[in-house]
Amino acid sequence: MPQVDYEPRTREKRVRRLLVLQTDFGTSDGAVCAMYGVANLVDPSIRIFDLTHDIPQFNIWEASYRLYQTISYWPQGTVFVSVVDPGVGSDRRSIAVRTESHHFIITPDNGTLTHIKRCIGIKEARILDEMANRLPHSGESYTFHGRDIYAYTGARLASRQISFAQLGPEAEIRSIVELPVSEACIKEGYVIGTIDILDIRFGNLWTNIHRHLLRKAGIEYGDRLEVVIHHDFREVFKNTMKFSRTFADTKIGEPLVYVNSLDHLGVAINQGSFAEANRIGTGRNWRISIRKVSHL
Amino acid sequence: MPQVDYEPRTREKRVRRLLVLQTDFGTSDGAVCAMYGVANLVDPSIRIFDLTHDIPQFNIWEASYRLYQTISYWPQGTVFVSVVDPGVGSDRRSIAVRTESHHFIITPDNGTLTHIKRCIGIKEARILDEMANRLPHSGESYTFHGRDIYAYTGARLASRQISFAQLGPEAEIRSIVELPVSEACIKEGYVIGTIDILDIRFGNLWTNIHRHLLRKAGIEYGDRLEVVIHHDFREVFKNTMKFSRTFADTKIGEPLVYVNSLDHLGVAINQGSFAEANRIGTGRNWRISIRKVSHL
Amino acid sequence: MPQVDYEPRTREKRVRRLLVLQTDFGTSDGAVCAMYGVANLVDPSIRIFDLTHDIPQFNIWEASYRLYQTISYWPQGTVFVSVVDPGVGSDRRSIAVRTESHHFIITPDNGTLTHIKRCIGIKEARILDEMANRLPHSGESYTFHGRDIYAYTGARLASRQISFAQLGPEAEIRSIVELPVSEACIKEGYVIGTIDILDIRFGNLWTNIHRHLLRKAGIEYGDRLEVVIHHDFREVFKNTMKFSRTFADTKIGEPLVYVNSLDHLGVAINQGSFAEANRIGTGRNWRISIRKVSHL
Repeated sequence: MPQVDYEPRTREKRVRRLLVLQTDFGTSDGAVCAMYGVANLVDPSIRIFDLTHDIPQFNIWEASYRLYQTISYWPQGTVFVSVVDPGVGSDRRSIAVRTESHHFIITPDNGTLTHIKRCIGIKEARILDEMANRLPHSGESYTFHGRDIYAYTGARLASRQISFAQLGPEAEIRSIVELPVSEACIKEGYVIGTIDILDIRFGNLWTNIHRHLLRKAGIEYGDRLEVVIHHDFREVFKNTMKFSRTFADTKIGEPLVYVNSLDHLGVAINQGSFAEANRIGTGRNWRISIRKVSHL
Repeated sequence: MPQVDYEPRTREKRVRRLLVLQTDFGTSDGAVCAMYGVANLVDPSIRIFDLTHDIPQFNIWEASYRLYQTISYWPQGTVFVSVVDPGVGSDRRSIAVRTESHHFIITPDNGTLTHIKRCIGIKEARILDEMANRLPHSGESYTFHGRDIYAYTGARLASRQISFAQLGPEAEIRSIVELPVSEACIKEGYVIGTIDILDIRFGNLWTNIHRHLLRKAGIEYGDRLEVVIHHDFREVFKNTMKFSRTFADTKIGEPLVYVNSLDHLGVAINQGSFAEANRIGTGRNWRISIRKVSHL
Repeated sequence: MPQVDYEPRTREKRVRRLLVLQTDFGTSDGAVCAMYGVANLVDPSIRIFDLTHDIPQFNIWEASYRLYQTISYWPQGTVFVSVVDPGVGSDRRSIAVRTESHHFIITPDNGTLTHIKRCIGIKEARILDEMANRLPHSGESYTFHGRDIYAYTGARLASRQISFAQLGPEAEIRSIVELPVSEACIKEGYVIGTIDILDIRFGNLWTNIHRHLLRKAGIEYGDRLEVVIHHDFREVFKNTMKFSRTFADTKIGEPLVYVNSLDHLGVAINQGSFAEANRIGTGRNWRISIRKVSHL
């Protein structure tokens, strides 16, 4: 594995990298502001952005998904810091990775890298030395690593005060913690997947079914589909709807299947909330099965 | 109409413009972050700000109002991108305008420009060519124009990689979609208007009655006013209160009429929520009538 | 008192200062955006950050605490603007201070500086001349000082268009308004304090008991403690729990006492909400008493 630090291809050599923060801290108290302050202490011209700070508390799955949802839309070399950390202060490792897409992520090694590892790929990983990579004089608190370790180290990496290789000893990529994931598949005439996450504001379901799998099943825009949703072993939804290229292809209030902004299958009600209307949740125990009605 | 691109009067020629984003996406998932990422991909030193991302879903009226509320407090040349887009994927146009106040706005042409067109003025409009102005390799999704078209194009305009004239063919200003609006007026001894919007956090009502109209009706600070509110044809509030220069002129818990930060009439309870206390909503069917009590 | 303006120790002389905003305005309407716009009007390359805009309306105590919680994590010279202002338009003073920690704060003089004055120290204070320090042409509104006075003046100070001394006449530090505060103490074998504030997202209680006071009482990590909470004169909680260095030292769902990120005592349930579970609030009438169980 090469030891050279990654250099983004920019006109200027060794340009500053951008820093993007994600937490489950919310923005109603001072926690995120303290992280911003520390990053500015490290480098007063650092450019900091937010992924989101509204990850539901301790929801590692969602933190993992949001990184996957956004990372490829950022310039190469961007440093992501994600702090959803139910095990703060335990012996869980802090890890820094360089992705196949040429981004950096620093995070507790608790499953936050699940989607990145599976869908984008990790090129190199380093175990963060938490004693060496800690804000000087950061007191006796062992409860706010977001400020004292992650923001501090992310800012140092972004402003090139430390190289990726200097963060700590190399880790084997296969040792990085992954949450259990189900793969979408075609079985007994159905395309079967799980409901990964909600498009929160609009109540749309996002599944783990890639549009390629739909195509493989011979499903095309305009087809009428049967959609069945199970929660564990209970059927909670069954109806037919159109596979639409855009929301505008359906009437307001009508359900539809569509390809979402990550090229996966979504289920929605045009200008309504499918999740609320049908009380649908997310996770591996929420399964969705789809087939063309014309197959009947 | 001149074809020269507008140049803000700054010391440096062709300085970068600021980019301001407004959506109804919320900030709890990755959508806004993806827009920020795309803008940084276009120009890694772009300066991006938020108007708000909490416009209620599909509420074009409020998007229009918030643009009007803020735009004149930003430097000339600032590029606003507003994405409240119930018709995403339909044949609704994407439009870019240059305002009389020398700002740019890029938005679906669905009424979002209502207040700007009426109260500030539009100097020039361009129809966005959605094929030419689309993030390269942005996949098969037709559901996230905020990221693939609007953030991308806004960033290109702000960083001067494209000129206003290059965005697409010119549109007639009178063709720009407007929501229906009522004008405030003086009638039968009353100043009559509508409740345009709430000062959300504080529960104050903001009306469409300009302070000039009050003055025309002979109403001055210190006057005791009768305030009547109708919802459709039902009277829902009737009381007298003082026309106060500041909140501090009234007791805590007391209602008042005041001039808000846009020089229009507001109705409030000092340190309380008038909207909640009296269950008042907003829109053209919420009418407010005001007269001096001494006129009785 | 020296009249020289403070200069942050940076490589460049007279470098721009950072601007950090705190309000109770929320971010769902255009108010904060208008403040950002005004700051950019003053200086289009100013760097602006948020402390939080979710201070509960008119809650001066919380505004004061959040400043104290974050200020020392920001570079020297940073300008904080805090607008929680129930008395807007009254004769309450607007004040600017330079802290012992070499930061600036501009705020209504209504108690917002309570914690800074007591725990960090104020070196110099100036009364803001609200007529001289007001956005030109800012209309007849007397209700939005956040935009017209505070953001405007904060941006001018941050971008060095005005010096601290030019803001207005000097004020005596002891004249700065303070909210009443209780001191933690040791009494009859108990360490006694108040519950200052919540770690909102996680439901942890943050007390005014510094870890030094615990140590003085002979309490050490690993000790089993009796924790009693009173609301006014009513006992609302009494139980024993461990004094833990980290959350990971306890089981999920177990309560603990810990040292928070400000070196004060916190009370929590590991991955639960102590405040919700026990319906605990904050303020001087919420008292907490702690002693070692082994003392019994």
